[in-house]
Amino acid sequence: MIEATTFETVALWCVLGIALLGLAYALFLRRQIMAEDKGTPKMIEIWEAIKQGAEAYLTRQLKTILPLIVVLTLALFFSVYIVPPSTEALERFPGLTPDRVKMIIGLGRAGAFVLGALFSLSVGQFGMRMAVQGNVRVAAASSKSFDKALKIAYRTGTITGMLTDGLGLFGGTIIFLIFQKAAPDALLGFGFGGTLLALFMRVGGGIYTKAADVGADLVGKIEACIPEDDPRNAAVVADLVGDNVGDCAGMAADIFESYEVTIVSGLILGLALVHITGQIKWIIFPLLVRAIGVLSSIIGTYQVRGKKEEKRGNAMAGINRGFYTSAILCIVSFAFLAHFYMDEWRAFFSVAVGIFLAIAIDELTKYFTHPHYAPVKEIARSSRTGAATTILSGLSVGMESSVWAIMVIAGTILSALLIYWGQPVAFVLYGVAMTGIGMLTLTGNNVAMDSYGPISDNANGIGEMACLDKNSRQIMADLDAVGNTTKAITKGVAIGSAVIAAVSLFGSYMTDVTKVQAQLGIPEAQHLLNTGIRVSIPMVLIGMLIGGAIPWLFSSLTINSVSRAASLIVMEVRRQFKIPGLMEGKVKPDYRQAVSICTVAAQKELIGLALLAVLAPLIIGLTLQVEALGGFLAGVILSGQLLAVFMANAGGAWDNAKKTIEDGLYGGKGSDAHKAAVVGDTVGDPLKDTSGPALNPMIKVINLVSLLAAPIIIQYRKMTWGVILFVVVALAVAIAAILYSKRAGRTEFHKVEESVCTPAESSGRP
Amino acid sequence: MIEATTFETVALWCVLGIALLGLAYALFLRRQIMAEDKGTPKMIEIWEAIKQGAEAYLTRQLKTILPLIVVLTLALFFSVYIVPPSTEALERFPGLTPDRVKMIIGLGRAGAFVLGALFSLSVGQFGMRMAVQGNVRVAAASSKSFDKALKIAYRTGTITGMLTDGLGLFGGTIIFLIFQKAAPDALLGFGFGGTLLALFMRVGGGIYTKAADVGADLVGKIEACIPEDDPRNAAVVADLVGDNVGDCAGMAADIFESYEVTIVSGLILGLALVHITGQIKWIIFPLLVRAIGVLSSIIGTYQVRGKKEEKRGNAMAGINRGFYTSAILCIVSFAFLAHFYMDEWRAFFSVAVGIFLAIAIDELTKYFTHPHYAPVKEIARSSRTGAATTILSGLSVGMESSVWAIMVIAGTILSALLIYWGQPVAFVLYGVAMTGIGMLTLTGNNVAMDSYGPISDNANGIGEMACLDKNSRQIMADLDAVGNTTKAITKGVAIGSAVIAAVSLFGSYMTDVTKVQAQLGIPEAQHLLNTGIRVSIPMVLIGMLIGGAIPWLFSSLTINSVSRAASLIVMEVRRQFKIPGLMEGKVKPDYRQAVSICTVAAQKELIGLALLAVLAPLIIGLTLQVEALGGFLAGVILSGQLLAVFMANAGGAWDNAKKTIEDGLYGGKGSDAHKAAVVGDTVGDPLKDTSGPALNPMIKVINLVSLLAAPIIIQYRKMTWGVILFVVVALAVAIAAILYSKRAGRTEFHKVEESVCTPAESSGRP
Repeated sequence: MIEATTFETVALWCVLGIALLGLAYALFLRRQIMAEDKGTPKMIEIWEAIKQGAEAYLTRQLKTILPLIVVLTLALFFSVYIVPPSTEALERFPGLTPDRVKMIIGLGRAGAFVLGALFSLSVGQFGMRMAVQGNVRVAAASSKSFDKALKIAYRTGTITGMLTDGLGLFGGTIIFLIFQKAAPDALLGFGFGGTLLALFMRVGGGIYTKAADVGADLVGKIEACIPEDDPRNAAVVADLVGDNVGDCAGMAADIFESYEVTIVSGLILGLALVHITGQIKWIIFPLLVRAIGVLSSIIGTYQVRGKKEEKRGNAMAGINRGFYTSAILCIVSFAFLAHFYMDEWRAFFSVAVGIFLAIAIDELTKYFTHPHYAPVKEIARSSRTGAATTILSGLSVGMESSVWAIMVIAGTILSALLIYWGQPVAFVLYGVAMTGIGMLTLTGNNVAMDSYGPISDNANGIGEMACLDKNSRQIMADLDAVGNTTKAITKGVAIGSAVIAAVSLFGSYMTDVTKVQAQLGIPEAQHLLNTGIRVSIPMVLIGMLIGGAIPWLFSSLTINSVSRAASLIVMEVRRQFKIPGLMEGKVKPDYRQAVSICTVAAQKELIGLALLAVLAPLIIGLTLQVEALGGFLAGVILSGQLLAVFMANAGGAWDNAKKTIEDGLYGGKGSDAHKAAVVGDTVGDPLKDTSGPALNPMIKVINLVSLLAAPIIIQYRKMTWGVILFVVVALAVAIAAILYSKRAGRTEFHKVEESVCTPAESSGRP
Repeated sequence: MIEATTFETVALWCVLGIALLGLAYALFLRRQIMAEDKGTPKMIEIWEAIKQGAEAYLTRQLKTILPLIVVLTLALFFSVYIVPPSTEALERFPGLTPDRVKMIIGLGRAGAFVLGALFSLSVGQFGMRMAVQGNVRVAAASSKSFDKALKIAYRTGTITGMLTDGLGLFGGTIIFLIFQKAAPDALLGFGFGGTLLALFMRVGGGIYTKAADVGADLVGKIEACIPEDDPRNAAVVADLVGDNVGDCAGMAADIFESYEVTIVSGLILGLALVHITGQIKWIIFPLLVRAIGVLSSIIGTYQVRGKKEEKRGNAMAGINRGFYTSAILCIVSFAFLAHFYMDEWRAFFSVAVGIFLAIAIDELTKYFTHPHYAPVKEIARSSRTGAATTILSGLSVGMESSVWAIMVIAGTILSALLIYWGQPVAFVLYGVAMTGIGMLTLTGNNVAMDSYGPISDNANGIGEMACLDKNSRQIMADLDAVGNTTKAITKGVAIGSAVIAAVSLFGSYMTDVTKVQAQLGIPEAQHLLNTGIRVSIPMVLIGMLIGGAIPWLFSSLTINSVSRAASLIVMEVRRQFKIPGLMEGKVKPDYRQAVSICTVAAQKELIGLALLAVLAPLIIGLTLQVEALGGFLAGVILSGQLLAVFMANAGGAWDNAKKTIEDGLYGGKGSDAHKAAVVGDTVGDPLKDTSGPALNPMIKVINLVSLLAAPIIIQYRKMTWGVILFVVVALAVAIAAILYSKRAGRTEFHKVEESVCTPAESSGRP
């Protein structure tokens, strides 16, 4: 390994320090928030119910996930015993026997996996707990001033944001400091841990939130004919908790994982350049960029406030002020870094492209989902001719938005290509990775903006139920409206960064496979870096076709899962309705039980989906080999990006079309146009909150499993009986997982439907 | 060129003779049909209106298409002047100067293009005219016997089927006989002509049929509040004509083009094997297989009849008898061919896989869209909880069906790989092409089955309007019901064969580009056949991402186009309603005008879409080069297949879910479940009849344009100012085409909507 200069060594330790500083800032904010007033007893009572529900979800989730983490940790540890340790590993730990080195690498990989998983879990769990702490305090503060309410809401969100930043940067840096040139192995474990947990939290959260939503409506409004949000309905709290589970815990884990994976692929691709150029700066650079991001986020997020004297203020302006402060600080510092440290501007441009990419995706998302622009207006207009035209125009809008989004992604890769024109592919891939690094530099601000959404949403809900005065309610309504926009923006960034991260991982796959091929003595002409992944080879084309199908299968199954989980909620609430005194309001329903059932159901649904994501690349790799697995990854990325954006934007556009009509357009609430728009919104809900976002972590889990399994696949490239047996079993498990997901979904859902009362029957009830 | 044996020369002439025999059989059937009785004056009057409408469509279509054919013919002729003639061409015409040879090749390419275009046009135009002739005769025959009605309906369809077979085989064989080893150039022109026309007829037909359908409903049922199919509504005839335009002309041209393109790619890939092995049998084989197919189809289709004594018969059993007769004849003959002529069984297995693929796709389509199976039952059940759940379960079903369909396609390629295990890639690609040859061997039967659908549908309509007796109506209802199934089956085969054909073209692309690269003196290491199409190269990945987006863009635009064309129909009918005496039934509406407006609108919409399909590969090729264009093609194939099957099957499943409810399930017609199911059906209509099928020819137009443009792209591989200018202009035109499609769609549709009466207003009218 090329030795780091003193400056570089110091810089690395500084990065670590800054990561800890970010965490300290989060702690500081937490203390600030916890000291705030929780408001009236009525507010606290409602809040307690939400808190109880959130705790139930978090506890249950932990119980489901922990055993899996243990199993996978062991699997990862022993996986290093299949292939001999790399020469880098032997060089990193000179004087140790190969067996000893193997054990250290195994411990590193397994330990990093645990670290990634725990960090991801913490971000989600801690962030969601803080959101629940924040919402009631925002409601209480709204009776004092706009400035105070905004500050509490945003700073509570910032806690999650700084956790994401701090833990991601800390993990990546510490692993690099320990393992140095042997870091890729451990980094992959770190990435996998975070991503797998994010898959669980994202998909589980998505199923939970929509199941609670749909279930509460089915059993309450349609069956028992009681109003929405009626406290006798045990599922209502699950619905409120769902907002936090999906938008807060799910999204935070998702972004954490993208933040982490971009560091992982940035470091792996940077190491490749270190080998080529002999300069260590390629690895130091992304870490410094991220450290600057953390500092800028700390300064920027603390700027977010309203004007003290105002009764009603513009929350978006305040949030934007913070964002632009951070962004300007970043760009100026990057320029200094490029000029004085890197001695070249190309790395700076790559990072800058990342920031522009984030802005471009923001604008695209806004254009296609914001009520001010043509697409949403178009959908709203179509709703006047009924639900069918509403759906059709939403599908058309979603499809088109996906086209432009992928063009932006393609443009990003093209930029990397132009910036590193004439250089080997390794530089271009590094450029793409740096774009990812740049794009998520301001994660502190982004996650803060996103978490701010459910916090002010819940605050608004608490305010409404506790009948606060008109002035406070107006403040919270203003905060809530801005929250919808910030949530949509973060969703766009999450998908875009997922694909950029996946493309970087795809690049790492090439480098990694080639290294293992060299290590196992495969002739150089057959090295993946020399042959490339050729879709013109039938085997690879087959891989690509199957890969392209996976996101479709996932989406089909997640849509089904929501139906199934909703049916379970319906059954539970129905059971509780029969408890004497409950319908009269004398007995409180068991909110915790409904939340728990919903959580368990969501976690169960996950098992099939997680198995698919983990097994598919193993099956493809072991049967069709590493090059076809590369084609498979390309197919997953292509289909995944197109479907994810399509579903997210179609859903967002339908949602806002409904809102514009509710604001009085075309007859407002209760009109035929509104009914049609509600159909659009209901169709869009699981698409935008469950199926679409589930694809982000799925794409990366598949990529990381492929990277981790590559050495094993190359080792067992000859079809032995053992391999065939493994593949057959894996295939059987995968098919069983699909059938389980489908079959069970159908039967249980129908059990519920059979007894759903028809409107004619139910109209007789009170 | 290796000389053909006497047997082979004779065989080739026999193939030509059999192609002509197929055409003669079509002529013979036509005479049979035309001699049949047209029924009562009332029936003839209704029929005249449909006929008039059909003629108006066909005339208008011809006028729009002919100038384009002229322009493209010239472009194709001059395109050969850009690169020097191939060595094969010089060898084929020894003794001629290179300039003379160039001219001959240019004439060949342009002439073959005209041939392909005219054949495709004829199949569509003639087939549709025959369908219109047949429908009234089926209605008349139904009062005599089931056997007679079935025979007329099926044989009328067979005419189109035999035209497809005969013209496709004749064109391919005659071009090969003339140009021999220089045939690829002319064959590509032939394929392009057929495919481009198919794109026009398929997309135009799709837009037409759904615009007329939706337009007639909007202006009649919703606005003027008159019943469906009311003769005062000028759009009603357009709606009836639409069935023929979409299901007959559009589908026939689509299948013709797949039939033709599989021959083209089979011959090109066969020629590559001739060069490798020195045996001419690789080209003779596919032509012989197809000739056997024509003979088998003649025998099989003539077997289709009911039992003479029966009043009500099983039409499906009769049609299946014909199909299996043909299939068995084919398979036995193929086995003989493989054993005695080919001297090897691998080619036989490839062709057999094609037949199995067709069956597998049939079964999949049936499973996902037939009311007997779980998916449609599931959608029907979901309709009880409203339109939103209906849409969601339909989306889930469509997505899942697409996954399995692509697995079947992947399995087919895998079979080719296993059959030619250990052989060079060229053999595997040949195997895939033979699968396509096998899959469409029974095109005569398939098209007959498909055209039978709209014929018996229209016959049923005529019978209903002319108030025929109950017995006859029952016979026609039985025929019609079977028609829905046969149409769905053909749709599945059309999509499957499109992708197999596209994969073969993708293979031809590799061979072709390499040949041109060799000819232009590019070093061998850079030949595409040596490098492969590497998605791991950033440029190629960009191509793939953009390629994957194209089908989404196309789908988004076609969904929009239907709305726009529908709005034009609304305006015309509204104008006619104001004519004094029309609403009282004293003045007949001008059906021809409505049909013509609909036709013109559909053709106009096409221009933007066709421009996109032609320009996109040129832009990508000239800017990103041939390898990236290969990635682009892979992306188009992957996304195209997934989206096309998704849309077709979701649409089909919604349609049948509605039908099962109309048959009395969950409250039957008028129930809430039915209303929800109608929403599903209306959403599915443009998806399954416009956007989905439009992707079949689009995929192949893009592939063929890439193949034709490859030499030019390689020639201009350095960015000169001329190339940059061309790309900029092409890009501007493409973007203008997209904006034109979108913008115009929005404004015109809304003009109509503004004046659509609300239910409250309209209820006062008679």
